[in-house]
Amino acid sequence: MPGNAFGERFVVTTFGESHGGAVGVVVDGCPAGLPFPHDRIAAQLARRRPGQGRLSSARAEPDAIEVASGVDPDSGRTLGTPISMWVRNRDAKSHHYQELRDLYRPSHADYTYDARYGLRFVAGGGRASARETVGRVAAGALAEDILSHAHGIEIVAWVDQVEDVQCSAVDPATIDRAQVDAAAVRCPDPTTATAMTEAIERARSERDTVGGVLRCVVRGVPPGLGEPVFGKLSADLAAAMMSLPASRGFELGEGFAAARMRGSAHNDAFIPDPERQASTDGIRTRTNRSGGIQGGLSNGETIRFAVAFKPVATIFQPQDTVDRQGNAASYTARGRHDPCVLPRAVPMVEAMAALVVCDHLMRRLGARVEELSSC
Amino acid sequence: MPGNAFGERFVVTTFGESHGGAVGVVVDGCPAGLPFPHDRIAAQLARRRPGQGRLSSARAEPDAIEVASGVDPDSGRTLGTPISMWVRNRDAKSHHYQELRDLYRPSHADYTYDARYGLRFVAGGGRASARETVGRVAAGALAEDILSHAHGIEIVAWVDQVEDVQCSAVDPATIDRAQVDAAAVRCPDPTTATAMTEAIERARSERDTVGGVLRCVVRGVPPGLGEPVFGKLSADLAAAMMSLPASRGFELGEGFAAARMRGSAHNDAFIPDPERQASTDGIRTRTNRSGGIQGGLSNGETIRFAVAFKPVATIFQPQDTVDRQGNAASYTARGRHDPCVLPRAVPMVEAMAALVVCDHLMRRLGARVEELSSC
Amino acid sequence: MPGNAFGERFVVTTFGESHGGAVGVVVDGCPAGLPFPHDRIAAQLARRRPGQGRLSSARAEPDAIEVASGVDPDSGRTLGTPISMWVRNRDAKSHHYQELRDLYRPSHADYTYDARYGLRFVAGGGRASARETVGRVAAGALAEDILSHAHGIEIVAWVDQVEDVQCSAVDPATIDRAQVDAAAVRCPDPTTATAMTEAIERARSERDTVGGVLRCVVRGVPPGLGEPVFGKLSADLAAAMMSLPASRGFELGEGFAAARMRGSAHNDAFIPDPERQASTDGIRTRTNRSGGIQGGLSNGETIRFAVAFKPVATIFQPQDTVDRQGNAASYTARGRHDPCVLPRAVPMVEAMAALVVCDHLMRRLGARVEELSSC
Amino acid sequence: MPGNAFGERFVVTTFGESHGGAVGVVVDGCPAGLPFPHDRIAAQLARRRPGQGRLSSARAEPDAIEVASGVDPDSGRTLGTPISMWVRNRDAKSHHYQELRDLYRPSHADYTYDARYGLRFVAGGGRASARETVGRVAAGALAEDILSHAHGIEIVAWVDQVEDVQCSAVDPATIDRAQVDAAAVRCPDPTTATAMTEAIERARSERDTVGGVLRCVVRGVPPGLGEPVFGKLSADLAAAMMSLPASRGFELGEGFAAARMRGSAHNDAFIPDPERQASTDGIRTRTNRSGGIQGGLSNGETIRFAVAFKPVATIFQPQDTVDRQGNAASYTARGRHDPCVLPRAVPMVEAMAALVVCDHLMRRLGARVEELSSC
Repeated sequence: MPGNAFGERFVVTTFGESHGGAVGVVVDGCPAGLPFPHDRIAAQLARRRPGQGRLSSARAEPDAIEVASGVDPDSGRTLGTPISMWVRNRDAKSHHYQELRDLYRPSHADYTYDARYGLRFVAGGGRASARETVGRVAAGALAEDILSHAHGIEIVAWVDQVEDVQCSAVDPATIDRAQVDAAAVRCPDPTTATAMTEAIERARSERDTVGGVLRCVVRGVPPGLGEPVFGKLSADLAAAMMSLPASRGFELGEGFAAARMRGSAHNDAFIPDPERQASTDGIRTRTNRSGGIQGGLSNGETIRFAVAFKPVATIFQPQDTVDRQGNAASYTARGRHDPCVLPRAVPMVEAMAALVVCDHLMRRLGARVEELSSC
Repeated sequence: MPGNAFGERFVVTTFGESHGGAVGVVVDGCPAGLPFPHDRIAAQLARRRPGQGRLSSARAEPDAIEVASGVDPDSGRTLGTPISMWVRNRDAKSHHYQELRDLYRPSHADYTYDARYGLRFVAGGGRASARETVGRVAAGALAEDILSHAHGIEIVAWVDQVEDVQCSAVDPATIDRAQVDAAAVRCPDPTTATAMTEAIERARSERDTVGGVLRCVVRGVPPGLGEPVFGKLSADLAAAMMSLPASRGFELGEGFAAARMRGSAHNDAFIPDPERQASTDGIRTRTNRSGGIQGGLSNGETIRFAVAFKPVATIFQPQDTVDRQGNAASYTARGRHDPCVLPRAVPMVEAMAALVVCDHLMRRLGARVEELSSC
Repeated sequence: MPGNAFGERFVVTTFGESHGGAVGVVVDGCPAGLPFPHDRIAAQLARRRPGQGRLSSARAEPDAIEVASGVDPDSGRTLGTPISMWVRNRDAKSHHYQELRDLYRPSHADYTYDARYGLRFVAGGGRASARETVGRVAAGALAEDILSHAHGIEIVAWVDQVEDVQCSAVDPATIDRAQVDAAAVRCPDPTTATAMTEAIERARSERDTVGGVLRCVVRGVPPGLGEPVFGKLSADLAAAMMSLPASRGFELGEGFAAARMRGSAHNDAFIPDPERQASTDGIRTRTNRSGGIQGGLSNGETIRFAVAFKPVATIFQPQDTVDRQGNAASYTARGRHDPCVLPRAVPMVEAMAALVVCDHLMRRLGARVEELSSC
Repeated sequence: MPGNAFGERFVVTTFGESHGGAVGVVVDGCPAGLPFPHDRIAAQLARRRPGQGRLSSARAEPDAIEVASGVDPDSGRTLGTPISMWVRNRDAKSHHYQELRDLYRPSHADYTYDARYGLRFVAGGGRASARETVGRVAAGALAEDILSHAHGIEIVAWVDQVEDVQCSAVDPATIDRAQVDAAAVRCPDPTTATAMTEAIERARSERDTVGGVLRCVVRGVPPGLGEPVFGKLSADLAAAMMSLPASRGFELGEGFAAARMRGSAHNDAFIPDPERQASTDGIRTRTNRSGGIQGGLSNGETIRFAVAFKPVATIFQPQDTVDRQGNAASYTARGRHDPCVLPRAVPMVEAMAALVVCDHLMRRLGARVEELSSC
């Protein structure tokens, strides 16, 4: 595939440029008979959209989704055929970008797109804009709905770190989206959330931006999901997360900290499941340093991982750069931009996690939704 | 694909269990007319094989590759047809594993394979063994040869960290394999190499194991390689590395450190190329915090990334576990095992990097080797 | 892929139900820098749409295409990113189909869709309608434009047979679309065209329908295109044609007639190219019984093949059938339907041929349009 | 994929040249827990191999399969991991082919391989040889075994036509392989078989070759299998058959004869299933002109199709050709060659049919063999 599709059995193809006609997605492989989850999709799109407050871009986009195929108008159920969904671009102020026609913004994709394609959609970063993720979030919410029906699988992401403000421990077993959304910065720990907000505001006031780390848990995945060699669940999650704009690192379970550990400290002892939960085969691990995946396959424990995001590349300070002819130039950003991508990245990470797990569930179970509920 | 193939235009399918008849690979998509690089493949397999000294498993495997198709016997050149290569398993002491038939080794893939397949190849970890990477390393060396012909692209990985022993700075522009191989632990800094070796020996003497971090550079990749959304070069590298046994984290460029940085500190200013190198379009970056990839596409700078490996799961101490019936049990490992996977993982990381870059080069250039040299 | 995408490097994903919101396509992999061929697309859609006269359905659909992404608004050139195109469904008289909710129309896909999905879009045959081909024809016209730029490759299909009216010989070297479109039935031989039209009218007046055969030529394909084993050009063309609604057979070159021939009569002798055409390597064949493909690869001669279409399943006579509960019932069709699908299938066959050849050209040449013109 | 792999969930990758080290296959996606069907594989390979008598090539190849991975040595069951199988080439008389180094055999793939790759494996046609089908037949027999366990699905092909000798009607409901194999020519009708044999002998004695048509039935496929648009069961069968060496045409059900029919004559009326067979939903068709597939999906009736094969290109008469430099030349074949490919193509067609149906079954049911038996 040329790079705009993701998945094997639950396949999403996104399309659209930030300031083009529309951004959207076609989902091929959605099981038939599922009540189409309009509300879940709208909710996640609302968490993704700009203009949510001082912490995000002021671009005003209602992001109302249009569904053009794949849903039975009579029953409101999915038909098993491709579901196409898109959002019109409305508040696109392209004139802000005219000056960028011949200038490469540092640490943006302007230059690499030109190197690859010979031309690019200048306004708004075109396809490299985070606006591309509208399609992912819509499709991810659909996938999440299937997972929820199938196994009560739950996915929750939160902001764990902003600049050097680090969240204290979050309980992976109980964290939910209401707790995450209690603060606009989407960190469930109120004290840390305040400190994160201050860090973001401070950066903004200094015409600068900040990066951070998201953490995510996936609860309820049955053991044995994934492929053992190249389609490892860990590998597919890594690819999914590293495909998000501005992501720079991925780690599973203890991740980079595992590199400093001894085997005796890192190994997860197996124990008989005290409660014989439905999502396991009667076997649990005492600890979960593996992050729910062993040998690339789920082991029934909560999948937990982290994603590092670099600071937003658009800063309101003069920067050295070059123009398309290779001449030295200076660039100072204008317009509407997030000082920190983390809060809005929460539904993106959840969406990509949902797409990976749903795809693997369907690789294992096939395409019949009736089985999804009894797996 | 069910999970044993990797790539789109340069596709490798690996096969084989650790103690089965053979481990090998079929490469589909290798350009025609390439002198088959026997020596390069043998060299990388030699760096991968066990029995290289005190730091690795004592299993004696000559790992002599057999090539059964895809090479013209007259000219020794690749035919463009599938290249099948395999290595016979010889020193397979399966009886060591009989006790494992009903026992799940902690933090191994025994349990998850059973959960997925209902049965598993018990001896040697079967397909979950690092022995599966024989095929990857052979195919990766072939890919590397193409890259070398095409652009003088060079790939070098080294051990950057073992337990808490961290390597001092390595120059990504000059590091080469001879420097890396100067010490058996494959850390190019002699002082650190000694400390790493001591850390490994100490762990081994305490019947324990250690983890660590590899770093890797890919030099000479032309700008614009990769796919902009889901097939980002960063995403494919992440998937490739997270598909390696025991890998737990991936980061590109500054990676997780970028999360603590401001945009003004992280951004890479563009500058006119002082030397107008062939591998760029006359545009360079002053710094390379992006790690050579922006917007998922190469920018002509050196690609640099790191991979975290957990400590080897096989420790020679008693561990709590359960048997296949879910009853509590105890397990103490015996047999031949590496105390640290890092030194042997160096050619594995190089191989996976080569597979990713070669696949993307062929997606862009198509299948004709004559073009590879003039790209 | 779940079955709504086609191609590997020039990938089309179609979506939409006959009477849903829209029918359309996303094209992933279109080279960048191509002037978007609005006119060519409109022309082929016009040849495909219903309401072209007495020979086709009276459904009035302007089939005006909307392009929402992938084209640079400034230059009108393709961006290399996904091109999404769709057509709104307007003249959808769904109430005609209410009676079909519980009834399976003979030789339609009603029953098999229910067997596969458990539900179906009743009105207009939903996704099984030939209206799904709107997306294919639009994408095919785009592919054709690339082929035209790249090699002057030309694709022409025509109606060769209707019921038992057979066209006399057509010169594959010179036939063009103007000749084909001279008669509404799209047979370039005027006498046969008249007889075909009469056959169709006769069937219609008898509340019946007819089948037929299309022939197609692809001129200018360079030698060596295709894959030698499973992605044979012949195999991909066969799959492409057999994916069209109502198609029942495919043959290449002499096809089924070859089965009756001796090798000495069927073999195509090689001869030096008298004119050293650019599209060959200086080698031609004296005859072209192979239909331009040998060993699955193009040999530089004109590719020629035929596709058999069954008679339209919708006849205005009472037919035995069963309802969803398996009870015997009777069904008599009403509404607007073509008595013969052949004339409108001409642009569909051309589109699918263009998609196959373009995909293979891009597999070989990669994604850079600048190379397409110099291949 | 570059063209040597087939399938999505049951994926076979074949490798090997006719006179190289080995020909074989890797099967990725075989369900775990299946008793490995050595006998079935050996039986089909025996039907495929040369040297079966006067009707086939005298090349002596025992074609004993070696299985190097994917099977548990203890239980003899499949592991769910890749199954690699190959056959060594033994009776390879390469010197017969030295004269062909610079000469293109008419209607062979010599020229097109050179055009594609720039070089080719000269001896024995290299990869274009029918010997490549060893891997397909082995993998197909494995697939067939799964189908047999899952649904009692049965696949039987036979020689229906040789040159102008046509078989009288064969009952698709009862034909079996014993009847087919009663005559060496593999036509179940004894009188026709004799006439076919005479036609082949006559052609051979005249230093010529003949073509023909195979027919094939697949019984017991449950309704609803296939994909509705591009992965139509009919399309995938067509691609599978057209990927076989020397195949020139494919038709489903009435095929090209349907083109001459009226809708009223071609439509298959639905009727309540008189016996409520397990393989249907209580719905049958009175006739089966559709060949068991409607809208690309199986309808529970017997799938029936035909494949046309051209006469073998190797004739023992002088033929005009050109050499690699484009100069006119003459070529007269020597060596061992089949005068008619049809009898040996029977297991090839069965194998490809099995691969298609098994792949679609697994797309629908996922990867768990336990479900296969209860589907």
